[in-house]
Amino acid sequence: MPYQPGRHFLQLPGPTNVPDRVLAAIAKPTFDHRGPDAISLTKDCVDGMKTVFQTAADVAIYPGSATGAWEAALVNTLNPGDQVLAFDNGQFAVQWANVAKRFGLEAELLPGDWHRGANATVLRERLGKDSGHRIRAVMAVHNETSTCVTSDIPALRRAMDETGHPALLMVDTVSSLATTDYRHDEWGVDVTVAGSQKGLMLPPGLCFNAISEKAIAASRTATLPRNYWRWEDVLEWNRKGFFPYTPSTNLLYGLREALKMLIEEEGLPNVFARHKRHGEATRRAVQAWGLEIWASDPTEYSQTATGVTMPEGCNEAEVRAVILRHFNMSLGAGLGKVAGKIFRIGHLGSFNDLMLAGTLCGVEMGLDLAGVPHRKGGVAAAMASLLG
Amino acid sequence: MPYQPGRHFLQLPGPTNVPDRVLAAIAKPTFDHRGPDAISLTKDCVDGMKTVFQTAADVAIYPGSATGAWEAALVNTLNPGDQVLAFDNGQFAVQWANVAKRFGLEAELLPGDWHRGANATVLRERLGKDSGHRIRAVMAVHNETSTCVTSDIPALRRAMDETGHPALLMVDTVSSLATTDYRHDEWGVDVTVAGSQKGLMLPPGLCFNAISEKAIAASRTATLPRNYWRWEDVLEWNRKGFFPYTPSTNLLYGLREALKMLIEEEGLPNVFARHKRHGEATRRAVQAWGLEIWASDPTEYSQTATGVTMPEGCNEAEVRAVILRHFNMSLGAGLGKVAGKIFRIGHLGSFNDLMLAGTLCGVEMGLDLAGVPHRKGGVAAAMASLLG
Repeated sequence: MPYQPGRHFLQLPGPTNVPDRVLAAIAKPTFDHRGPDAISLTKDCVDGMKTVFQTAADVAIYPGSATGAWEAALVNTLNPGDQVLAFDNGQFAVQWANVAKRFGLEAELLPGDWHRGANATVLRERLGKDSGHRIRAVMAVHNETSTCVTSDIPALRRAMDETGHPALLMVDTVSSLATTDYRHDEWGVDVTVAGSQKGLMLPPGLCFNAISEKAIAASRTATLPRNYWRWEDVLEWNRKGFFPYTPSTNLLYGLREALKMLIEEEGLPNVFARHKRHGEATRRAVQAWGLEIWASDPTEYSQTATGVTMPEGCNEAEVRAVILRHFNMSLGAGLGKVAGKIFRIGHLGSFNDLMLAGTLCGVEMGLDLAGVPHRKGGVAAAMASLLG
Repeated sequence: MPYQPGRHFLQLPGPTNVPDRVLAAIAKPTFDHRGPDAISLTKDCVDGMKTVFQTAADVAIYPGSATGAWEAALVNTLNPGDQVLAFDNGQFAVQWANVAKRFGLEAELLPGDWHRGANATVLRERLGKDSGHRIRAVMAVHNETSTCVTSDIPALRRAMDETGHPALLMVDTVSSLATTDYRHDEWGVDVTVAGSQKGLMLPPGLCFNAISEKAIAASRTATLPRNYWRWEDVLEWNRKGFFPYTPSTNLLYGLREALKMLIEEEGLPNVFARHKRHGEATRRAVQAWGLEIWASDPTEYSQTATGVTMPEGCNEAEVRAVILRHFNMSLGAGLGKVAGKIFRIGHLGSFNDLMLAGTLCGVEMGLDLAGVPHRKGGVAAAMASLLG
């Protein structure tokens, strides 16, 4: 890309803008991962992640991308041929099911609507028919990044409890964690999957599992082969303050700094409120432009990112290209089934009112330059929303 | 640790000292991994790694620790129950075999001497008896980090060729790559395994496979389950300039900078010569102290790190602790079978004469403080060696 002055607006639904303080922490000299300094770093990172997951259970931190944490959830708890359920309501939900298939699991996609969250009624019916309890896990995405739709995880848990079904509940929080209230323990989740590059305000390269006692018990008998992702090794070494193999030392420095900002300085309730407020202002802008929000149910609007439906005859890729060229801003593409149909505005991570204002001004001017039929006034509506 | 002035001496056999330029590159703002800037970064990193591996074959770059690249070599090419050979000559050689066992492979350890490299004669004999070609892979470590002994990879290749054995040759170059001449293509290696935190002068968090055509062919029929480490996905996406899932963006920035330094600025032949020279000076110091070098055959001395044998009655852990406390320097511990018996001096990565001089002065003073019987004059001998 040719030189462009000023800061890039990284308004994907992740990777997100990383605070300078976190980048500076990552740039500290690498250290001895088996030395005495490693112990407090491991403890700070693991304890902080427990706070963010709202859990007293075990947390595993891996050097890797979140796709690896999906894999970790499956290979630690399941056996070849096991049946698992996923929801056909978004690209990442479907992709996680595809990972399961690659490990010889029988992954069934429950019918869904890509404009909606995971359907608890459909789940209840399906589990009710599984009288032999052949289904071993239910895999759901808390915030489906591809559609910008949030699922009601407690409703899924209730559907499982009401049918007395013993399957494990696995939840992907890659784009919701540290943006949207999420409670691993209270919601009865068995394995939570997360990554570093979204609400946690870090570059990509770390991924996470939060693990219930029930999931730990399943791992004791699970026969899918595993080594890198093996919980037992990670947790055993973590208890001593180390990792079973060389961890991503510099990203751990960044994680400690980001956790300090999120937990001690801003405070998680304020983090959630900020994302909610920015989500609301963004949707006001989209509505004022006369464009449609992809998510169809207001109770499922994402606080992380907003999917904007393209009018008939307009392609989102062209709009994004114009905005990148003119305003040095990256927006999220339509993925999979919705490629070409929606673009996504990320409003998560290290973000504030004026970054949002700049983002929405870029979208409003970009719609104009790209010739997308719309009304003016989106930015004004967002500012009114911010002023409350 | 209490405050200590000046720079820490990170003289492990890895992680190594990361150049400020590389740390600064890693601290650049995170970017859109699906945007146009990603394409040249992917190409620069993949092409540079091919140069370092001395290969025209495919290279896969993963977000992860090198333990993952071991796993990648196995799960992409082998089938449950396949027989593989490893050498019982060091902690990492044995650990790689243990990873193989966890994937249901029948891993046989060829008898070895922890003071020596992988034994080509033993390999030739074993392969000669395998008339049915049941053995599918030979796994060797180029520079065994735990013992500071280098193996003669071309000799292993010859043993395989002379017996006409079709097994894949897999080589771990985690601590040798970009320190010691290594030729993936010329030496007929099928899968080379590497990590970022040693000769490549990066923090931990990236790992690599270089992959021969024969290994690619094996991956087409291999039935071990895989997703995160699946070559086919990585290589297919790389050809388009991207990765199948979010890569470790900031470490890739660092990798590009480090490759520029190694390939374009210093030049790989000079990198190898520098490591050789520092290895030689270090061994002169050890000999002058009247201590033993753990490696027993001078043709197998490591250019990466030197293992120093403790005199009877002295424990290496105490020596290292004294040196860390007094001089703010980390040395490598004895691992596995050699715990307590040797410490290791890393002289690899971003390193120069005066860093080596400081390192050896720290060891010489540390031996004194820890009461290890030795003669003075190691540093003087090293300086004489450096002056040539």
